[in-house]
Amino acid sequence: MSDQDIIMNEEYTTKRVVSKALEDILYKELKVLDKGFIRVIDYMGDDAAIVQAARVSYGKGTKHKQTDRGLIRYLMKHAHTSPFEMCELKLHVKMPIFVARQWIRHRTANVNEYSARYSILSDDFYTPEKSGESGIASQSESNKQCRDGNDIDANELAAIIQEIKDSNDQSYGRYHRLMNVDIDGEIIDPNKAGVARELARMVLPTNIYTEMYWKLDLHNLLHFIRLRIHPHAQYEIRAYAEVMLDIMRQWVPAACEAFEDYSLNGISLSNQEQAALNAILSGKDPDFGTMSKREIREFASKFPKLDMDQFSKAA
Amino acid sequence: MSDQDIIMNEEYTTKRVVSKALEDILYKELKVLDKGFIRVIDYMGDDAAIVQAARVSYGKGTKHKQTDRGLIRYLMKHAHTSPFEMCELKLHVKMPIFVARQWIRHRTANVNEYSARYSILSDDFYTPEKSGESGIASQSESNKQCRDGNDIDANELAAIIQEIKDSNDQSYGRYHRLMNVDIDGEIIDPNKAGVARELARMVLPTNIYTEMYWKLDLHNLLHFIRLRIHPHAQYEIRAYAEVMLDIMRQWVPAACEAFEDYSLNGISLSNQEQAALNAILSGKDPDFGTMSKREIREFASKFPKLDMDQFSKAA
Amino acid sequence: MSDQDIIMNEEYTTKRVVSKALEDILYKELKVLDKGFIRVIDYMGDDAAIVQAARVSYGKGTKHKQTDRGLIRYLMKHAHTSPFEMCELKLHVKMPIFVARQWIRHRTANVNEYSARYSILSDDFYTPEKSGESGIASQSESNKQCRDGNDIDANELAAIIQEIKDSNDQSYGRYHRLMNVDIDGEIIDPNKAGVARELARMVLPTNIYTEMYWKLDLHNLLHFIRLRIHPHAQYEIRAYAEVMLDIMRQWVPAACEAFEDYSLNGISLSNQEQAALNAILSGKDPDFGTMSKREIREFASKFPKLDMDQFSKAA
Amino acid sequence: MSDQDIIMNEEYTTKRVVSKALEDILYKELKVLDKGFIRVIDYMGDDAAIVQAARVSYGKGTKHKQTDRGLIRYLMKHAHTSPFEMCELKLHVKMPIFVARQWIRHRTANVNEYSARYSILSDDFYTPEKSGESGIASQSESNKQCRDGNDIDANELAAIIQEIKDSNDQSYGRYHRLMNVDIDGEIIDPNKAGVARELARMVLPTNIYTEMYWKLDLHNLLHFIRLRIHPHAQYEIRAYAEVMLDIMRQWVPAACEAFEDYSLNGISLSNQEQAALNAILSGKDPDFGTMSKREIREFASKFPKLDMDQFSKAA
Repeated sequence: MSDQDIIMNEEYTTKRVVSKALEDILYKELKVLDKGFIRVIDYMGDDAAIVQAARVSYGKGTKHKQTDRGLIRYLMKHAHTSPFEMCELKLHVKMPIFVARQWIRHRTANVNEYSARYSILSDDFYTPEKSGESGIASQSESNKQCRDGNDIDANELAAIIQEIKDSNDQSYGRYHRLMNVDIDGEIIDPNKAGVARELARMVLPTNIYTEMYWKLDLHNLLHFIRLRIHPHAQYEIRAYAEVMLDIMRQWVPAACEAFEDYSLNGISLSNQEQAALNAILSGKDPDFGTMSKREIREFASKFPKLDMDQFSKAA
Repeated sequence: MSDQDIIMNEEYTTKRVVSKALEDILYKELKVLDKGFIRVIDYMGDDAAIVQAARVSYGKGTKHKQTDRGLIRYLMKHAHTSPFEMCELKLHVKMPIFVARQWIRHRTANVNEYSARYSILSDDFYTPEKSGESGIASQSESNKQCRDGNDIDANELAAIIQEIKDSNDQSYGRYHRLMNVDIDGEIIDPNKAGVARELARMVLPTNIYTEMYWKLDLHNLLHFIRLRIHPHAQYEIRAYAEVMLDIMRQWVPAACEAFEDYSLNGISLSNQEQAALNAILSGKDPDFGTMSKREIREFASKFPKLDMDQFSKAA
Repeated sequence: MSDQDIIMNEEYTTKRVVSKALEDILYKELKVLDKGFIRVIDYMGDDAAIVQAARVSYGKGTKHKQTDRGLIRYLMKHAHTSPFEMCELKLHVKMPIFVARQWIRHRTANVNEYSARYSILSDDFYTPEKSGESGIASQSESNKQCRDGNDIDANELAAIIQEIKDSNDQSYGRYHRLMNVDIDGEIIDPNKAGVARELARMVLPTNIYTEMYWKLDLHNLLHFIRLRIHPHAQYEIRAYAEVMLDIMRQWVPAACEAFEDYSLNGISLSNQEQAALNAILSGKDPDFGTMSKREIREFASKFPKLDMDQFSKAA
Repeated sequence: MSDQDIIMNEEYTTKRVVSKALEDILYKELKVLDKGFIRVIDYMGDDAAIVQAARVSYGKGTKHKQTDRGLIRYLMKHAHTSPFEMCELKLHVKMPIFVARQWIRHRTANVNEYSARYSILSDDFYTPEKSGESGIASQSESNKQCRDGNDIDANELAAIIQEIKDSNDQSYGRYHRLMNVDIDGEIIDPNKAGVARELARMVLPTNIYTEMYWKLDLHNLLHFIRLRIHPHAQYEIRAYAEVMLDIMRQWVPAACEAFEDYSLNGISLSNQEQAALNAILSGKDPDFGTMSKREIREFASKFPKLDMDQFSKAA
């Protein structure tokens, strides 16, 4: 997609709610991974729109009783989610296909993705080039879905990167040979028919980049961020969620603060954990009921200041 | 809800897409029924945003090939609906509860409704005052869900209107007596406890007005209009759909024109109807296969210029 | 709706998953409120179906590693919600319209409601007849949306009940007079045209009962129960959520146990609450940061064994 | 996934609605493409359940008035879709990733997909081996998203198939070398760390097969079939839609017949097309208004018996 189609530098007047902070970054590519980006294309509403919608619901019931920030915190704390749905964000995102496949599982959003049936995909592949938690790493021993955070030996790392680059080059060459079209769009062999785009693309690996317009309301956006910024989410989608959280902080600062306090950085305690904690707060030695060793470890990790060694059942 | 909370007369600058026509009616109450309204509170996108999203999908595949209007018509005709989801509209609507109950069946929308648990409902009831298809009328003989379009005798009409007004007055008085609060918000009898708002409201009839903020994308909005502007829809919700269609014509004129040509004013022909029509176009006497008399009548109504009497099976 | 249409006493053979406990209550009316009910009409899956779907996702990754109950608890704790969507429940519910209006706000469900455009509503009104938290009570002082739990003086209670009964009788009479049809379906006055059903019903108050078929997946059902069984939900919808929870306990006992432990009876702690708790667990006097008095009270209510008087900032 | 986990041969008794035809194919793999399949895992309801739900809505309004088949046809013709949502189907599907990517765009469904973060993908690639519309073909000249239906020269075809097979073999080898695990699950080089599964999978092309559990209601299933069985849909997903239509014919024969008559094989006529047709039916020479040549061709294709040459504007 050529940028001149969509970048707009002109200014207009509007009576709608305007977010000064979002206007400043509108249409700008915020870089993610090696070749990806997020661009804010449009938005509707801001913190004030949340309050406005809540006040339709509560009518005179809330008037003059709370500040806007206080009302937003109250709504977030009690999971009164519908006023947050009154804000909307439209993004243009470029991400690897394996990230897009996780992304699209969030169903409450509007999507227009670049179609490889209509057009030829560009030569953009995700190619991590360093080792560690945010790059190339080994399978985690403790978590079946994650990589670990250790560095990989430099020689092995070089070989791995080369393997990925070879995959990129070979598959992209194969894609063009199948279509009988070279990188410049010229026919390779006039005696060959070539394969349709919708078929040729099937040899492309899932680290090739795709693009989409993606539009959703603030409630669902916060839900996306919460799930995808989680340490167990794959690093490559987490990188996008981190950029989105930055955008939220600028667009809806009060809602974002409440989200971080109550949801993102909140913890939850099960029935059993509450019983153990209440015992501890009463000065007793908790028996941890039916909690497994793993669950007791998870409990302990929620209270870093707690000396678990003092409890007889916590070994 | 006090209007000063939400009416905004100030103008701001924005780099977002702006619809001049919608700016002109922003925040204005467009009257519907006797006491209802639709107000446009916010919007995202316009015809150009549909094209922009479609071009992300089709990439170079569509560039410079079609005008914007042509592309929008192509999308509408072939039910490529996702680019239409890239526009969003937020309305403030006041409607009777029985209309709200039909309205809310459209699930793909965001809603904040005035809560009669938090606040006392105003003394606004829908009271039709004339007879005929858009007012008070009798049960249709031919359609089990509709009223007919005939006028009612003036004496009976007067009695009917009085019955509705009595219902309004008695129920609103009862509502306040139950709460032990008068119309001015004063306690009626200091020796009585009164009933909670969430309970007292249950004696209110469904022609009392409620209000909601309602936000949804253009594709779902057009779907709402198509279903609710249909002659079989109840007049009272049709009145809202008509106003919405007017708003659409101003906001997204190309999309709305395509919607009217292909969807709203389009007709569909079943397998059997096509067979009959093809016979007629070949100069034959159609046998109408397994079509019932009712289905043959429906077929005939689609082609007003067709003389059905010439066909032996059409009696 | 005549019951012979839908009650089925015959038994069939199936290779599908069968829940013995649900088969025992299938088609039976479980009473709710004075005239309402919930009937289980159909179901798909059980605890085993959740595990089955999870194992498609995790493949060999989970095999033989966890018991079914352990896997279900793991999924619930970590909010891996999609396997719970693989169970489905279809209910036939009869509830007052004001309850139906709250109910229908849950959008991720399939609904067929009795239509008062097609048919005449029966003479069934919700009429609470005792006072207190689960009946007639006054507006709560502390919570703007709730009733309090106090009994109402017997004389006032009698007057309130009479007021509601008068409302029921007068509105139902008015409904029939408007239609010019008596309770037995006979025309009242042959010289009058009467009003269409879709119009006449607008004088009926929202405590009249309606019926619907309602079908949704287990994840969304648990979400419904969590929101609607909450003490701040209106008693009348809570009564339905309680019956649903009973049904869950029989249908999917492991999922329901996990839901109760982690979600329904779980608590969450904000950033600020964690800081205060960590201070307390370290033997310090917490400063409660920016928490308001109300938030400190809410914090205290989560830990009934905690003596708040020992903290200087908790007054 | 090992089949013994999910195949159930036992029979149970149930009072629920049972579809004899679906019971016969339950759990059986219905082959699609070279290595894909659809298996029916569970279902809820049948034609009778549609009627049952419709009769809740219409109450006495429909009773004894129509046969079940007639009522289903009426519902389908008038797009009264909610009763169709009262049936539910759960499938286990194996399809190439590029098909899964189209599939998942249908948002109103429940999904559990095999996770390549948890488990290693099997050596199953989609490899078309013949030429033509349902195999390897060239880009269509007339449709930017489709292949044409022509055969490819045998020598070129052999080279294309070899190219795809090379892609399969090389990428699958690379996948394992990156993980440092061979096909049997043994570590290749004990001195290497290997790459986590979530990373290694990114070199796999989109013709590798994945699996999912997929569950949705009948209304949305028919919508899926309508869009994906369309000649413009990619052949590979059409193959799945064809098998689904076969399943529908067995499961809900009346609903499926109505769907085929009114929707799948129905045609729609725009405003302009109706005007042209009405002119023709009146014996006039239609002027085709603002219709483009392409639109006139599309119009003609809807009426194969119509001799377009007789019209002056149809050239």
